[in-house]
Amino acid sequence: MMHTISQPINQRISPADLEEFCVQAMVKSGLRDADARITADVLVTTDTWGVHTHGTKQLRPLLKNIRQGRLNAQAEPEITGQGSSWAIVDGHICMPPATSAMAMKLAIHKARETGVAYVGVKHSGHFGAAGYYAVMAAQEGMIGLAMCNVDPGVTVPGAKGRVLGTNPIAFAVPAGKEKPVFLDIATSAVAASKLYAAQALGKPIPENWLVDDDGLPTTDPTGYPHHGALFPMAGHKGYGLALLVEVLTGVLTGASMTSQVVSWIKDIPDQCNQGHAFIAIDVGSIIGYEEFARRMEWVIRFIKESPKAKGSSRIYLPGEMEWERREDALAHGIPLPQDVAANLVGVAEDIGMGLELLSKPARAR
Amino acid sequence: MMHTISQPINQRISPADLEEFCVQAMVKSGLRDADARITADVLVTTDTWGVHTHGTKQLRPLLKNIRQGRLNAQAEPEITGQGSSWAIVDGHICMPPATSAMAMKLAIHKARETGVAYVGVKHSGHFGAAGYYAVMAAQEGMIGLAMCNVDPGVTVPGAKGRVLGTNPIAFAVPAGKEKPVFLDIATSAVAASKLYAAQALGKPIPENWLVDDDGLPTTDPTGYPHHGALFPMAGHKGYGLALLVEVLTGVLTGASMTSQVVSWIKDIPDQCNQGHAFIAIDVGSIIGYEEFARRMEWVIRFIKESPKAKGSSRIYLPGEMEWERREDALAHGIPLPQDVAANLVGVAEDIGMGLELLSKPARAR
Repeated sequence: MMHTISQPINQRISPADLEEFCVQAMVKSGLRDADARITADVLVTTDTWGVHTHGTKQLRPLLKNIRQGRLNAQAEPEITGQGSSWAIVDGHICMPPATSAMAMKLAIHKARETGVAYVGVKHSGHFGAAGYYAVMAAQEGMIGLAMCNVDPGVTVPGAKGRVLGTNPIAFAVPAGKEKPVFLDIATSAVAASKLYAAQALGKPIPENWLVDDDGLPTTDPTGYPHHGALFPMAGHKGYGLALLVEVLTGVLTGASMTSQVVSWIKDIPDQCNQGHAFIAIDVGSIIGYEEFARRMEWVIRFIKESPKAKGSSRIYLPGEMEWERREDALAHGIPLPQDVAANLVGVAEDIGMGLELLSKPARAR
Repeated sequence: MMHTISQPINQRISPADLEEFCVQAMVKSGLRDADARITADVLVTTDTWGVHTHGTKQLRPLLKNIRQGRLNAQAEPEITGQGSSWAIVDGHICMPPATSAMAMKLAIHKARETGVAYVGVKHSGHFGAAGYYAVMAAQEGMIGLAMCNVDPGVTVPGAKGRVLGTNPIAFAVPAGKEKPVFLDIATSAVAASKLYAAQALGKPIPENWLVDDDGLPTTDPTGYPHHGALFPMAGHKGYGLALLVEVLTGVLTGASMTSQVVSWIKDIPDQCNQGHAFIAIDVGSIIGYEEFARRMEWVIRFIKESPKAKGSSRIYLPGEMEWERREDALAHGIPLPQDVAANLVGVAEDIGMGLELLSKPARAR
């Protein structure tokens, strides 16, 4: 039976119910409970931030990767090399968010001892929103960075086709009485989702989003993704930053690099073998947590109290909108977009689960 | 006597002669020989890369800072705190390139022991091109990062005025048989020098370079720098990255932060108290230098051999143009632009030096 998005899924879903649905779906798909729980937390937290492109919408393709053998539900990540401030983790293609959370925990543990640590991951896959792992560090009083390489979709100056991935980079900074400041960005000019939106509206796009098959700027989004390549953000600057991400996640870890990385959502047998990089910097060791927090709060106040542009009433810190959406989601449930709801119905169909957890009224916190 | 740019300065100057001129000028201004030599190397290397905005053109204002007491020629940087993978250096406002080279050497030394290290600097000033320090690490077989905070000149989304500095970030990566890949960028949309160029030509600028006094985009560059503020690069992305630089260079080090940083080129008594951050990652500890180099060479070949855009015959790696200019400068002398030559003549005037070193024919390497 084909479920449609008119199925009884609440418009607002309790994060706890959504998380439980995800855990049950993953355990039913062969994951250990602990791996399912951390992966569900990654995806649902991302939905509470309103970043629905990277939230529970991705559960369905992740589980499909498992059924296709592109991910191994029972494998466990392994530390294959380490020193006092670094480690390399072989993900053995187990669930990427579980591997990634383990790797960031390791970076935090090492940074607690030495001040700073880098953990690289190879043989992994799509880890969801990089920002989640950066925020893990911030919640432990550390500056966190998280990065991932991606199969090529972005051109570079002088090239006509796809050379580097959208290679995201995220950071988070603890801020005392304030929520952590955090940013999670692709190093491409725009996300592919913006091209799809323009296609749906039949609208032209700005000249610096996409190149055509000759490598020249185009305002016509209709051929994407079969044709064309994204521009890097800010031209040569984004090209360079995407290459830095490739170095820290791919070259340094032993993961696939650039064209060796294959898409995780295409219906192909190859494992995508993405690499990740996690960095933690323990501000408590370096300047003392209280002093750092006081200084960070001062910077936040300075930015927020700066004079506003004509027509603007507020300046947001990076991550501030996400924290406000999360506050609302925890109080009133997550307002799930239709495409996410459709994907969750698809998960239930794929593995023969009921939709009861998704049909309960959102509970007040 | 007023020297002009019609003085007998060679159009091409031998890097060795230019360096000796700079050393003599600095020693005459009270610097120790070692500090003068490293500072001259920073400035002249930058000129050989063709990055003349940050090369020996800056010697004159740096020496003026010393005469005004804004820098202290005889002070020495001091390590005020350290752990196995981090240190904080108090620059005691001595010559910033000398402090910065000492700090990056310390990061390299610590990374050799533990794999990764961060060194933050407070009480410093204008350190020239961030890329120089990143390349120092690459020349030791490490990935290097260098950053600096700057007095506010850039707006952020929602604000009307200057909130953050152009806060540059640079990285360099060793690449085996290839030259190190390196990038050195401001996190603003463009450098102020591009606005001055448009002013000189009487031309309008693109809509995403500058905001006016209401915080709205303007195509009129004429009021800058007395009016307006630069856009961050790529909107909220550059805003976030500039804030990360502020955190690592200012909040974490004890240096001035955002509006506390004062301009180093205005004729004011206050010390600018900028902060720097240096990070070194020892690829040899983590994956083995030979293996890393082999992988990096593969990535470089893949990028350079990618199909070219219509009208393009070549894809450059970040830093590749700079290395080619350096090759030419070492062989045939540095082709110094008129504004740089005028500044060097100014140095000689300011401190009563001859121009002999700058008037010799450039020697072949």
